[in-house]
Amino acid sequence: MAAPSDEEGAVGSRCHHRATAMLDVPFLPFCAFLGTLGLLCVAMVGTWCQHWRGGFSLDGSSRTFNWHPVLMVTGLVVLYGAAALVYRIPNTWSGPKLPWKVLHGSLALGAFVLTVLGLAAVFCFHNSQGTPNMYSLHSWMGLGTVLLFSCQWAAGFGAFLLPWAPTWLRALYKPIHVFFGSTILMLSMASCVSGINEKLFFSLKNGTMAYKLLPAEAVFANTLGLLILIFGVLVVAALARPSWKRPDSDSPDSRQ
Amino acid sequence: MAAPSDEEGAVGSRCHHRATAMLDVPFLPFCAFLGTLGLLCVAMVGTWCQHWRGGFSLDGSSRTFNWHPVLMVTGLVVLYGAAALVYRIPNTWSGPKLPWKVLHGSLALGAFVLTVLGLAAVFCFHNSQGTPNMYSLHSWMGLGTVLLFSCQWAAGFGAFLLPWAPTWLRALYKPIHVFFGSTILMLSMASCVSGINEKLFFSLKNGTMAYKLLPAEAVFANTLGLLILIFGVLVVAALARPSWKRPDSDSPDSRQ
Repeated sequence: MAAPSDEEGAVGSRCHHRATAMLDVPFLPFCAFLGTLGLLCVAMVGTWCQHWRGGFSLDGSSRTFNWHPVLMVTGLVVLYGAAALVYRIPNTWSGPKLPWKVLHGSLALGAFVLTVLGLAAVFCFHNSQGTPNMYSLHSWMGLGTVLLFSCQWAAGFGAFLLPWAPTWLRALYKPIHVFFGSTILMLSMASCVSGINEKLFFSLKNGTMAYKLLPAEAVFANTLGLLILIFGVLVVAALARPSWKRPDSDSPDSRQ
Repeated sequence: MAAPSDEEGAVGSRCHHRATAMLDVPFLPFCAFLGTLGLLCVAMVGTWCQHWRGGFSLDGSSRTFNWHPVLMVTGLVVLYGAAALVYRIPNTWSGPKLPWKVLHGSLALGAFVLTVLGLAAVFCFHNSQGTPNMYSLHSWMGLGTVLLFSCQWAAGFGAFLLPWAPTWLRALYKPIHVFFGSTILMLSMASCVSGINEKLFFSLKNGTMAYKLLPAEAVFANTLGLLILIFGVLVVAALARPSWKRPDSDSPDSRQ
């Protein structure tokens, strides 16, 4: 009875290896897919605001508001996701770490600047319309996310880019920085989908265009919301995948 | 110059150890805090619906709808979070694994049943009011989350509780199950906050009670939304923390 059992074991092992090989996507093609998905999200939020919501301006009207979703999706989701993934590029695993640190910090700073401009757009719109700021759950969550992001950037700069930061502080803070990196992305996804949902209820009110009748705009913007969630979940998955992490993450080089 | 450098090193090491010890929260007190926070979320969503939204009934009115937020927060956030954390309890790390698997599966099944009842409440309300179902981004995302959860439960049952599931399949599927465990919780948090945001815009419309004037109900429900996010983030953090993971997670006992 030993032979069939061995054979079963061998078949099981072959199945496991084949299935593992199927799941073992290389990072760079995955990254190219993520980049395409991110650009699609940016293109879709731009198209939504341009085609259905009247385009863009700086006059304090709803066309000023339109900068808000575009800048938030571009900054706090797509560019933020790109910044988070820098250390997963295999080229970053050898050679000096400093240029990659600077790239990571610069992309995150770019994401932060777009985010602040996105906030400025909605505050400017509210103020010129006489609408109060910061009353909805979307605004509380969104501002909380941006505040967390600003603490994350400042603490990351202080701990990892200032050359006099002690090694023990870097070692202690690194897992916290990594954890909040994914958490802030999750919160920004939640902020984006609640914002899109809210905007559609505000905008699609009249009889033939009511949200509940699912006009083309509603299908388009709902799809955008789902794509933002898929993008965010895939970035968090890529960050969590053990085989894509920098193997020498605790090297003395990190003092650079 | 060697002595001050050694001294500095010793001071740095002491700082690191002290700071690490401060961050090293034991699991059970953290879990008690999470349990309290989860119960607070359930109590708050119940209070919101009872005190401000007219209470509960099964007559197809908005009082039937009120079961929806209560059941979703209780099932898809709090009970789901409890199910996800079962394998982090140190008692589960020794002895037979089967009773803990049954507990994990049962809590998840309980969460799923509450979730389905929560969906039934909103469909019943919409149908009796003549409102279309499944048009908002909140509903698309929420239903997507519940569908993912049902696949997760069925696949988890098939792979880990059926005794004839092959070991290679379990080993292959386990990281996928673990990843989707956290992902579904993230999506359910996003669904909850977008739903609370939407409900407040629907409900708080008249002059003195407008959402934008931040009446007591708005502050209360916004706070509930933030507490749900904090609960979800803390559960995901607890799941991700390496020192709280079952050390022998790949033991042959998993074939039980």
